Amino acid sequence: MFSSNDTPASEFKYADDLGVIVNLDDFTHIDFFEKSVGHFPKKMCCRFNPGGVYELSNGIMDNPGDSKYGMTKEQIFEAYQILRDKGVEEFGIHAFLVSNTVTNDYYPTLARTLFELIVELKEKTGISISFVNLSGGVGIAYRPDQTANDIAVIGEGVHKVFDEVLVPAGLGDVAIFTEMGRFMMGPYGGLVTTAIHEKHIYKEYIGVDACAVDLMRPAVYGSYHHVTVLGKENAPADHVYDVTGSLCENCDKFAVDRQLPKIDMGDILFIHDSGAHGYSMGYNYNGKLKSAEVLLKEDGSFQLIRRPETIKDYLSTFDNLGIVDNLL
Amino acid sequence: MFSSNDTPASEFKYADDLGVIVNLDDFTHIDFFEKSVGHFPKKMCCRFNPGGVYELSNGIMDNPGDSKYGMTKEQIFEAYQILRDKGVEEFGIHAFLVSNTVTNDYYPTLARTLFELIVELKEKTGISISFVNLSGGVGIAYRPDQTANDIAVIGEGVHKVFDEVLVPAGLGDVAIFTEMGRFMMGPYGGLVTTAIHEKHIYKEYIGVDACAVDLMRPAVYGSYHHVTVLGKENAPADHVYDVTGSLCENCDKFAVDRQLPKIDMGDILFIHDSGAHGYSMGYNYNGKLKSAEVLLKEDGSFQLIRRPETIKDYLSTFDNLGIVDNLL
Repeated sequence: MFSSNDTPASEFKYADDLGVIVNLDDFTHIDFFEKSVGHFPKKMCCRFNPGGVYELSNGIMDNPGDSKYGMTKEQIFEAYQILRDKGVEEFGIHAFLVSNTVTNDYYPTLARTLFELIVELKEKTGISISFVNLSGGVGIAYRPDQTANDIAVIGEGVHKVFDEVLVPAGLGDVAIFTEMGRFMMGPYGGLVTTAIHEKHIYKEYIGVDACAVDLMRPAVYGSYHHVTVLGKENAPADHVYDVTGSLCENCDKFAVDRQLPKIDMGDILFIHDSGAHGYSMGYNYNGKLKSAEVLLKEDGSFQLIRRPETIKDYLSTFDNLGIVDNLL
Repeated sequence: MFSSNDTPASEFKYADDLGVIVNLDDFTHIDFFEKSVGHFPKKMCCRFNPGGVYELSNGIMDNPGDSKYGMTKEQIFEAYQILRDKGVEEFGIHAFLVSNTVTNDYYPTLARTLFELIVELKEKTGISISFVNLSGGVGIAYRPDQTANDIAVIGEGVHKVFDEVLVPAGLGDVAIFTEMGRFMMGPYGGLVTTAIHEKHIYKEYIGVDACAVDLMRPAVYGSYHHVTVLGKENAPADHVYDVTGSLCENCDKFAVDRQLPKIDMGDILFIHDSGAHGYSMGYNYNGKLKSAEVLLKEDGSFQLIRRPETIKDYLSTFDNLGIVDNLL
């Protein structure tokens, strides 16, 4: 399934060549897709944006009305009818309304929004949706004091809404898709780094040999990532540190005012929940090179699955004058 | 000159091999440098952090007391004496207190802070500083309603403080260094992108074929970059758009609620002041590839100075199993 927005023509064409399900982000993409690809596949999906704010019982979760994604209700109803007239035979719906929720209520609430919409679509247009992609948004507990999502409870919640809304409407054969990227990957990657400096000025700092190049979320979003000092799991967290990387950006801190055990030079820090938005969101700011990635297997063995970057990688688009000249 | 923080031993060693002036960020780096390199060069620099907040006449500029950089006054005085005892013969001082100032007062104020400090250092320890690196912080006017810095006025301001503070103290031979990265580069690069989508939902969106991969500042810092629609420089700015890239991040917007002329598909947008923190701060999020860079010469000719990335570049650390195996 290819979910995108602001999509170049070449990407629609490539997705169609691959035979994947294309998820149209916008009403105008119907024309754009037809011009780019020349035909429509038999199966397509459309992305919905309800607008306004999105509330659960515990308050406002996010503001879809301010989000660049998806179609309004009026647009998506019209989109399905146009696509049907153009020969599309099977339809899906997709929506992503809130990122990284830590509540078992989000997915069932989103399911109700979409299920009710497709019942109404069926009634008003006769068009049956064959699959609902609830997308992502099921998050992880970055902070140890958070209660993690219970995926079985979430599943039961969606099932209950399915039985309440879809089955009575004769839509009990609708398939449910998910895109559990962060939920599946986030907790299962860690950034392993060594303390190389301790600095005592107006605050206490521990400098490590990783930086925002390896994990950008704390630097640019102020995100919390839990830190464990290996071998000191049971030591009292009686020191307060900023844990910093070496970028020339004061935001390059993995932790700010964090209570941790006393850290000695050479201690290894494990920065948790780096399996999503880590390497894939990494950059090369200040010319820093990205780290290797090692796979820890169930039997305790490990394997290098990505080599560390080299200065040659960093300069690869810059130093090969032959390639540059050939492109001119 | 090598200014760094949280510096790995290998980088100090490499800097020493190259014979550059090393700027020590921290008091503990004296020991660390000695252990890493084995000796001290004849000329070294230390970085100062005054702590507290940094105020100009127009208010608080930034909060050095919360910054990871530099040494306290007590530390830097002690550092120079230790370095002298270890054979260092020539000393510099460096401080970077506020980023991207748009005022002619910052540099002279910083100069006064540092000049007064080195007069006091001379009086108390007999150590003469031979150069002052005022570093960066002289910014650019990203917004058209801002008054740009006048570099000549800034220079005169520093000169006046020099004559007031250093000359009477017998330090009239101190050299002044600067690090005018953003000031010299920022305004002289532009991101050129084409409008490929227009979207009408709860807001009006223009989708372009660049994204935060090419220029991250608006997405992660909410930074303003001026946008010109080429050929419509004199058209009334009577439309309000969000100008978006295609990343799966709602923050991937080059402009939010921006008044612009009516934009038609195929229009070329020039995103100003992208010469600093643009490509160098770029990433490959969502697997997006970075653009080429073209040099526009004074005679109007141009030259490709960096080729666009390819999927092969993107996978270079991942797909060469020979290299991966060799590293194991």
